[in-house]
Amino acid sequence: VLTSEEIDTPALVLDLDAVERNIARMAAECAAGGIALRPHAKTHKSPWFASRQSGAGAAGICTAKIGEAEVMARAGIDDILLTTELTRAKLDRFLDLLELARVTAVVESADAVADLGRAAALRGVEIPVLVDVNVGQDRCGVDSPEAAGVVARACASTEGVRLVGVQGYEGHLQHVLRADERRRLAFEAYDRLAAAVEAVRAVALDLDWVTTAGTGTYRYAIEHGLATEAQAGSYAVMDARYGAVEGVDFDAALFVVSGVVGRNRPGRLIVDAGMKTLSTDDGMPAVLGHADATYETVGDEHGRVTGLDATTERVWLVPSHCDTTINLHDRYTLVRGGRVVGTLPIAARGRVT
Amino acid sequence: VLTSEEIDTPALVLDLDAVERNIARMAAECAAGGIALRPHAKTHKSPWFASRQSGAGAAGICTAKIGEAEVMARAGIDDILLTTELTRAKLDRFLDLLELARVTAVVESADAVADLGRAAALRGVEIPVLVDVNVGQDRCGVDSPEAAGVVARACASTEGVRLVGVQGYEGHLQHVLRADERRRLAFEAYDRLAAAVEAVRAVALDLDWVTTAGTGTYRYAIEHGLATEAQAGSYAVMDARYGAVEGVDFDAALFVVSGVVGRNRPGRLIVDAGMKTLSTDDGMPAVLGHADATYETVGDEHGRVTGLDATTERVWLVPSHCDTTINLHDRYTLVRGGRVVGTLPIAARGRVT
Repeated sequence: VLTSEEIDTPALVLDLDAVERNIARMAAECAAGGIALRPHAKTHKSPWFASRQSGAGAAGICTAKIGEAEVMARAGIDDILLTTELTRAKLDRFLDLLELARVTAVVESADAVADLGRAAALRGVEIPVLVDVNVGQDRCGVDSPEAAGVVARACASTEGVRLVGVQGYEGHLQHVLRADERRRLAFEAYDRLAAAVEAVRAVALDLDWVTTAGTGTYRYAIEHGLATEAQAGSYAVMDARYGAVEGVDFDAALFVVSGVVGRNRPGRLIVDAGMKTLSTDDGMPAVLGHADATYETVGDEHGRVTGLDATTERVWLVPSHCDTTINLHDRYTLVRGGRVVGTLPIAARGRVT
Repeated sequence: VLTSEEIDTPALVLDLDAVERNIARMAAECAAGGIALRPHAKTHKSPWFASRQSGAGAAGICTAKIGEAEVMARAGIDDILLTTELTRAKLDRFLDLLELARVTAVVESADAVADLGRAAALRGVEIPVLVDVNVGQDRCGVDSPEAAGVVARACASTEGVRLVGVQGYEGHLQHVLRADERRRLAFEAYDRLAAAVEAVRAVALDLDWVTTAGTGTYRYAIEHGLATEAQAGSYAVMDARYGAVEGVDFDAALFVVSGVVGRNRPGRLIVDAGMKTLSTDDGMPAVLGHADATYETVGDEHGRVTGLDATTERVWLVPSHCDTTINLHDRYTLVRGGRVVGTLPIAARGRVT
């Protein structure tokens, strides 16, 4: 369905029709399920996406880094949840950002609450914060309801900090292949989150913001009933790894088109897309439309493809991991109805600070 | 030795003293060995590096993509070898580039020679080309002396194409850990290259450009005596994978400094550098100065570190693969003598076309 003739290779291609279908469908599912949607912008890194998601009813967006939030806020996107903890050195940038948009921070300790409080007090502002709960991913977050209560009480007693909710993201469950297994594990994570929420609510009675869930689990968050908000991001574009997860059925909207540059190896084509075009942290990309064909990177700028006709000129690939592949590129090449219709900057690409 | 206090995390840090030592030393070794040096700019992606390498005596530079070559040529770098084959769609850009700098292409087939000849004839120019020989990496290149002869004769009989040499890059051998094993395999590759060179010289008697070798093998190329030029790139900055290769003893000049954002997991620190800051295609980065400490990515923006004191604020890492890690960043943070002395744009980052 996708054109290949007009695109210089390799290129990161976005099927706009598929993107719009995905955005509309996730918005409708969350609305029907009675849960807010706050799409994660670390996937698309583009204010255009964030704006379209907001237009479809999103409560705001998530970003992983202040740098991403800065790009979004400057483009006019409001209500940003920074889903990762901050080092102390970043608090000034965070406070600057509060001048442009509503931004919420997450905290995992009373020490972090004290840091935020001191910084906020110096400026005479108030920082909205969520208590971050570890529900099994074992990165940041508190480990127990008791620890959640400690952080909540620190918030309650610290000027410049306003406790507004709880975050507990089950990132480690998003790609559990079987739906029933994924549902069971997600419910365990939400039960763990519920105990922390209860401890926090003992401090903040009217707390009504519980944020969790990704593209692989948002349906279970709706079914479980605790969470008020889902943080899914990948659904907008999808990738080969999510495409293999049972019950995740958004449309593939993200592709890489590569050109054949080597034909001297029998049974193999060498293409001009390697590790600088396609991330491999989640395995190798899939070859679009050829289930038996395989692709593997063989260097920064080369890939080796088997299973295609020897006269092939262009090879279309489906990235294995959308976030890290998008982050390699400066722009999307836009396609609609099989025609190239311009490019879109990946404005927050590389914003790792 | 490196400062950490002034740098916002995560950041890609370049030790300028170490870079300058590496550039000077490789230049001296190649000069003493009687071989030209054409450093590969796909590693550093920076005209500053290319200029310093030229200043130290380099014959020119290599790039993998036209986009990289465009950045270098526009910055005034002359004599560029494009080490990868071109798709037909790129020939116009290649010919435009010839207006700014001397640029040499590589070819693996008579068909490619015909394409280049047609494009060059339309503009009334001549394209210098190398016959690309597969010496075991199994990407592009001809497989036999006979095939090399076919391509050479195609060059000789095609207007607009001028045969100037032979390329045979043994990329698959650069990281063979044991020096004696690497030397033996490199000599086999150079013998294979020598047979192809002989077949090409039967067509082009005065051919005097044979280019090969990387950071792991340039010494064996010198010792073997066939090659006239080495293409090493990584030596300028080094990385953890090359650091483990016996006999490769350039100085580590490239680091990532990360900040601790999570302290709730016993025995582990969570840092703000993940897969969008550090490439993992060659394994995990090393923890600088702590041989027993380990780092692993746990998501786009998180890393998990073991073996460090619980009060650690900043963790210094040595990237496992310099090329793909540098390609994630927009700039180097420069350090000299333990002090931050500015930043340097990674001007050709993301130039994959």
